[in-house]
Amino acid sequence: VGGESTTMSAATDRIRVSYRLKCQSGDDPHERALDIAFEQTVELPEQCVPSRIRDSVVGRVENVTQADGDAWTATISYPSHTVAGDFGQLFNMLFGNISLKSGVQVTDLELPGSYDSQLPGPHFGVAGLRQLCGVPDGVPLSCAALKPLGLSGAELAQVCYQFALGGIDIVKDDHSLADQASAPFRERVVLCQEAIERANRETGGSSLYFPNIPSRWSTFKDDVSTAISAGAAGILVSPLVIGIDAVRCTAEQGSVALLGHPALAGAFFQPDHGIVPDLLLGKLFRLAGCDGVIYPNVGGRFTLSENQCVAINSRLREPLGRIKPAFAVPAGGIDVTRIPYWLDRYGPDTIFLVGSSLYSRGDLTVASRTLMKSLGR
Amino acid sequence: VGGESTTMSAATDRIRVSYRLKCQSGDDPHERALDIAFEQTVELPEQCVPSRIRDSVVGRVENVTQADGDAWTATISYPSHTVAGDFGQLFNMLFGNISLKSGVQVTDLELPGSYDSQLPGPHFGVAGLRQLCGVPDGVPLSCAALKPLGLSGAELAQVCYQFALGGIDIVKDDHSLADQASAPFRERVVLCQEAIERANRETGGSSLYFPNIPSRWSTFKDDVSTAISAGAAGILVSPLVIGIDAVRCTAEQGSVALLGHPALAGAFFQPDHGIVPDLLLGKLFRLAGCDGVIYPNVGGRFTLSENQCVAINSRLREPLGRIKPAFAVPAGGIDVTRIPYWLDRYGPDTIFLVGSSLYSRGDLTVASRTLMKSLGR
Repeated sequence: VGGESTTMSAATDRIRVSYRLKCQSGDDPHERALDIAFEQTVELPEQCVPSRIRDSVVGRVENVTQADGDAWTATISYPSHTVAGDFGQLFNMLFGNISLKSGVQVTDLELPGSYDSQLPGPHFGVAGLRQLCGVPDGVPLSCAALKPLGLSGAELAQVCYQFALGGIDIVKDDHSLADQASAPFRERVVLCQEAIERANRETGGSSLYFPNIPSRWSTFKDDVSTAISAGAAGILVSPLVIGIDAVRCTAEQGSVALLGHPALAGAFFQPDHGIVPDLLLGKLFRLAGCDGVIYPNVGGRFTLSENQCVAINSRLREPLGRIKPAFAVPAGGIDVTRIPYWLDRYGPDTIFLVGSSLYSRGDLTVASRTLMKSLGR
Repeated sequence: VGGESTTMSAATDRIRVSYRLKCQSGDDPHERALDIAFEQTVELPEQCVPSRIRDSVVGRVENVTQADGDAWTATISYPSHTVAGDFGQLFNMLFGNISLKSGVQVTDLELPGSYDSQLPGPHFGVAGLRQLCGVPDGVPLSCAALKPLGLSGAELAQVCYQFALGGIDIVKDDHSLADQASAPFRERVVLCQEAIERANRETGGSSLYFPNIPSRWSTFKDDVSTAISAGAAGILVSPLVIGIDAVRCTAEQGSVALLGHPALAGAFFQPDHGIVPDLLLGKLFRLAGCDGVIYPNVGGRFTLSENQCVAINSRLREPLGRIKPAFAVPAGGIDVTRIPYWLDRYGPDTIFLVGSSLYSRGDLTVASRTLMKSLGR
């Protein structure tokens, strides 16, 4: 992709990355920033690097300022030709080798405008997904999860049907549903899609079924095609399991909406090391092409704070060149009765993914209607 | 893969996973183990799970014992049909959702024998890679890295030539070399392979060049083919960037040796949360099919301890059903002068990957000969 143009624009086109550096006594934060600038590009000490490479390739430390206590903020810019529009290499440069050091947290990433064509982001985005669901601006959406693993395809289809009768906008597979013998992928997708279409005919609604694509390299593309052929308008993917560039490639085709699952993401959320949740789930998943990103809401079974959740929402929605905004999809233990509280805080460009709280109510259709009412619908 | 047979053997075929649980005051370690058993399978509270699913799908807590202080060890077994031989789903079940909790460290994994056919591991292994390199049993190997990013393909080929003249067994690309305009992948691979063959003709040696395959989903397979067509006997891959199942698929083809790079792995190495280094880099990378696994050696630029390095070595070499042992490849700041020290500790089934310590010596061929001498060759 554009080898010559990236070389020509190398002087101005830079990727800016911000880090929070937790310093031990004796650490010089400027030296640590310089160490990152070398580690993430040439992997050599300064004296071994030819001067033209020093100038044209090695990261440039733009500033280092004290944040709080023994933590410092450093911004390093990298010439964009070092990544060359390759999402895998971008991820690698962001945190590949320095993941193996300690006290380095990637907090921000700014890509130059030249990346708009290489990383076009969500194909549908908030507006496109609203259109698929037939839900106008200003109205929040609902999502339910098909589970548990172990049910047959026909049983899952029946669950899907019940949710759709209750008006749920998106019924997605649990991300544990891969291609197990209990409900083989191809059969499950066909049965669940048929079930949701049957419910839609009965209600006049437009509920959508999003199957989970197994994180299996050899069949991933075929499985996406199977989902599309069956009539699915969207799919669930786990970017960190299948590989984040698989998401970008799928989004680029533009034929199916993408809901990103945060499986494995928590590995990156150490207090002083990793990639902050809003950057990973909010910005990187959006850049990869997710039209909606599931994250574990505060107060549920997982550990993000409300500030972190709000920050993820902001990243998904903030202006970002020509890249469309994506839906925030809080999940992981949201109670139906608390929906109005979260709707007030998170706003309408949110898909509320409710799981156990629907299942524990017994009748899934009645529970779904309760959820829709709590969304003001 | 074998849907019926996995169902039939479900009663006996179980995957056993061990966890270290860091408990806060008030935490009941037995409850936390049970929580994991549900979270990683059905994602529902017990009362919402039909009893046949409870028995046939949900993880079974096998034992919970106190480890040290407020840390406990729990072993949970899962019916192997819940994973169904899918490496992505295995990874997901190991740490997908619980990555988003805190104080959970995956410390061990035992697969039933039925996995031998689904996860065959390294195609070459220690013996096969020795044969490719022409290095007999009991003799340690050397590896050097082509760098820095920013050199042209011709310049990198010249570096490759100099290492090979000095007798280095494997010359691999730096993992930052993707498909940048400075040294496009296809051109670089052809030039470096030509350079190493030229050096081999002059020395009578059998040095190998392992190009880095960019972590780019759309071209990964083609890039592997390009490397093979050019004559490369092996490649470098970053399993956690491209997606670990891509490695399994490539290994299965059996046409090229695989050296695994630990990019992003450090995210999983939190003190009390994640996947321990020996399980991730030693066992999982080996199961995925890596013939050699690079890890950051103690005392270099990164943070693993000597015990952790020794544990990785053990995992790569220990008996594991029909799965071949893989080479330990310590790296990340090994000094040429310290090689005898590490050789004594790590033993001969080791590939010593030396980078800066060769570059800082100026003449790469002379430096390479010094390295070979320090290996007793």
